[in-house]
Amino acid sequence: MTKKKVAIIGAGPSGMAQLRAFESAERNGREIPEIVCFEKQADWGGQWNYTWRTGLDEHGEPVHSSMYRNLWSNGPKEALEFADYSFDEHFGRPISSYPPRPVLWDYIVGRLQHTDVRKYVRFETVVRFITFDETSQLFTVASEHLPSGETSLETFDHVVVASGHFSYPHMPDAPGIETFTGFVAHAHDFRGAEAFEGQDVLVVGSSYSAEDIGSQAHKMGARSVTASYRSKPMGYDWPEGFEERPAITQIDGSRVYFADGTAKDVDAIVFCTGYQHKYPFLPDELALSGPNTVYPAGLYRGVVWQSNPALFYVGAQDQWFTFNMFDAQAWYVRDLIMGVAPIPDAAERERFIEEWTALFEAIPDVTGEIVFQGEYVRDLLQQTDYPDLDIDKVVQIFISWKHDKQEDIMGYRDRRYRSVMTGTLAAQHHTPWLDERDDSIERYLAGHVDSQTGEITLPDARTLLRS
Amino acid sequence: MTKKKVAIIGAGPSGMAQLRAFESAERNGREIPEIVCFEKQADWGGQWNYTWRTGLDEHGEPVHSSMYRNLWSNGPKEALEFADYSFDEHFGRPISSYPPRPVLWDYIVGRLQHTDVRKYVRFETVVRFITFDETSQLFTVASEHLPSGETSLETFDHVVVASGHFSYPHMPDAPGIETFTGFVAHAHDFRGAEAFEGQDVLVVGSSYSAEDIGSQAHKMGARSVTASYRSKPMGYDWPEGFEERPAITQIDGSRVYFADGTAKDVDAIVFCTGYQHKYPFLPDELALSGPNTVYPAGLYRGVVWQSNPALFYVGAQDQWFTFNMFDAQAWYVRDLIMGVAPIPDAAERERFIEEWTALFEAIPDVTGEIVFQGEYVRDLLQQTDYPDLDIDKVVQIFISWKHDKQEDIMGYRDRRYRSVMTGTLAAQHHTPWLDERDDSIERYLAGHVDSQTGEITLPDARTLLRS
Repeated sequence: MTKKKVAIIGAGPSGMAQLRAFESAERNGREIPEIVCFEKQADWGGQWNYTWRTGLDEHGEPVHSSMYRNLWSNGPKEALEFADYSFDEHFGRPISSYPPRPVLWDYIVGRLQHTDVRKYVRFETVVRFITFDETSQLFTVASEHLPSGETSLETFDHVVVASGHFSYPHMPDAPGIETFTGFVAHAHDFRGAEAFEGQDVLVVGSSYSAEDIGSQAHKMGARSVTASYRSKPMGYDWPEGFEERPAITQIDGSRVYFADGTAKDVDAIVFCTGYQHKYPFLPDELALSGPNTVYPAGLYRGVVWQSNPALFYVGAQDQWFTFNMFDAQAWYVRDLIMGVAPIPDAAERERFIEEWTALFEAIPDVTGEIVFQGEYVRDLLQQTDYPDLDIDKVVQIFISWKHDKQEDIMGYRDRRYRSVMTGTLAAQHHTPWLDERDDSIERYLAGHVDSQTGEITLPDARTLLRS
Repeated sequence: MTKKKVAIIGAGPSGMAQLRAFESAERNGREIPEIVCFEKQADWGGQWNYTWRTGLDEHGEPVHSSMYRNLWSNGPKEALEFADYSFDEHFGRPISSYPPRPVLWDYIVGRLQHTDVRKYVRFETVVRFITFDETSQLFTVASEHLPSGETSLETFDHVVVASGHFSYPHMPDAPGIETFTGFVAHAHDFRGAEAFEGQDVLVVGSSYSAEDIGSQAHKMGARSVTASYRSKPMGYDWPEGFEERPAITQIDGSRVYFADGTAKDVDAIVFCTGYQHKYPFLPDELALSGPNTVYPAGLYRGVVWQSNPALFYVGAQDQWFTFNMFDAQAWYVRDLIMGVAPIPDAAERERFIEEWTALFEAIPDVTGEIVFQGEYVRDLLQQTDYPDLDIDKVVQIFISWKHDKQEDIMGYRDRRYRSVMTGTLAAQHHTPWLDERDDSIERYLAGHVDSQTGEITLPDARTLLRS
């Protein structure tokens, strides 16, 4: 019998979780399918693979990563820790709860560094179009190797879509925006707030991007930060010079008018207006669409494409749980593909979807969403051999985290949590978030603070790494 | 016998020329094929359809247009006038030789406004992937209607690629660019230089984009403009505060180091480093690749894809001649499709390509390139019923234009040429290019200058249009 062939689209956290899931099965003596992982970028890590580029990349492809300089995790790392690879195992000592991007990138890449799964990844290779043939029950994947321009057409038994949904900006129009001559970009193309020093900055939106990019602007010395919300303000205890206003009604040159009748002259506008589910390589009958939500329609157990259960999505949800949820999904998808977990018939899947959708729709608030996603992950974990993960403790961390933010939006990243996996208490970072302008892993790991004087010593960083 | 089906990819100047060519045949009583023109944008005009958006558009597709505010034609309009639709016919009176973008957009759109060809265009519809079936000799075009997400798969006898090649930036890396915290973008994402007032601006490149974006920065009050060239400087008589330096060797924060050992602190960097031939919807065996050149490889008579002569490219050349060359190509492609012009066999086509390639490669200088492209257009015109066009006169205009630029790079757009089609001498525009900051068609057409006082009167523009 020939091996099944599986195409994984994307080698970001979700695609890497899928690779890890197969690798884990192989390590346990199981024979795994033939795998091809298509990755547009030259390296793996998805969003966490920072680039200075914006818009289109060196090959003319849409830039994938929306990350910027000085981005630190906006949730405690203890809520996203892998159950099969702890922060302690990777770093060899406690680190703080809110590491900057390069540190998290190092962690997720580190888990796969000592495996051979990189051999499955075709880098700088973009999937152009996928079709499904009813007769053969096979997918044909048309891909292009970007450096050479070579096209390949290959068939697969399964496709795992792990390309993410925070890469294609939702960029609304705004009346008069064509008259604005300052800096204007979507959060996706924002790369750092240093140039906002002394400027009046407007962020449009009231979710994580607006919160953090506004905070970055404040941190980097913007003269003022205004956040414009559509439905309701974020409502944090913002520092001096940071305020919220309702929706934009008109832009006229540098002047922006708001729904409360006020106006403000600004130098820069960053649209933090979210992202689209966009899968340009999928025909409509296979493509997830709709809003960013914790329970997207059309997916059995959040991963199986209901109308064609040979197709899977990993990481398609809006996310409280992240890396560990991707793991739970990837382990389950692996077991479905390998025939270890049973796949119910369409009617049973539909019944299950309806049951969970009803639960989801009854959720009254954000805390309920977190609890719901915890239950969702727990259900997946029960289907597979992924190491045990104390969902309740993670949910508690999320709830404390939300409380921390309410208390001190500019200081919550200086707080510390205890690992659910190892019990290790996070280290106190040497520099408060508000004062730290160097997000390199070298500085992060090498810094020491004298507990008497508070002085920071930075020995040669490279020699310390992993020492 | 069923009608042939023709897919035209793109409704910019080239695709519109193709539509006009078919429309012209139909007007002359010939039966034309079934046509579907796929256009990603919501309106036609291609590059000339300005958008404030950069990077990805409202549907998450790469933004097509590279145009910016206050872009005026950088060549005399007399060199690009349609032979079948004069500026006089469109505007009803003489206009200046270097109109701003909205005026040229109005002109190219105006030619089709009184025809019914818009019915052939599927707007907001992107072509995803095209395959060719050797057995049926048909192309299958997979397209997506962006607002609905609906996918269509349709077969065509012919495909005309008219999607242009000034949309996908060639964006090189630069050592240390990730440390630069100012504004950085490719020319493709540049939308206007107003924000450069008082700033030190660097443009990278030495072709049209660098020349014009550097000039825009100067015009809008940049403190300094530096243009960095790789092989040789543009060498114009630049105004005070505008200088050329060799290649960038290193960027360190705001400081840029050049190959001559000098350094300069800059606030903004615009990469004017050209564009890629990129056809993500074509498999490699159908996709043109390589550098931007007046005579691209693999195209018989510059339009027929040698290895599959059912596929055509319009406007794939680097361009001196533009709109009128697209017409000559489109008329010829139309006649090939309709069987009016004969298509030679592969060997004869190859012989022809080699002959012209040899001619092209022997060209010693830029003037030679212009003359060559004139001969290329003349050859096409001889194959079709496109109205007569005095190629020699157009070539003369190009040569004078290059001379004008050498004489006065900040003033050449104030000069006037005589129409090759109608003999009309261009009007003197009411405001010199360097002083004009309003590029609207209303101001352009409505303005009058008192010849005694130099005072500009601007009557209500809308009422004057076409009056």
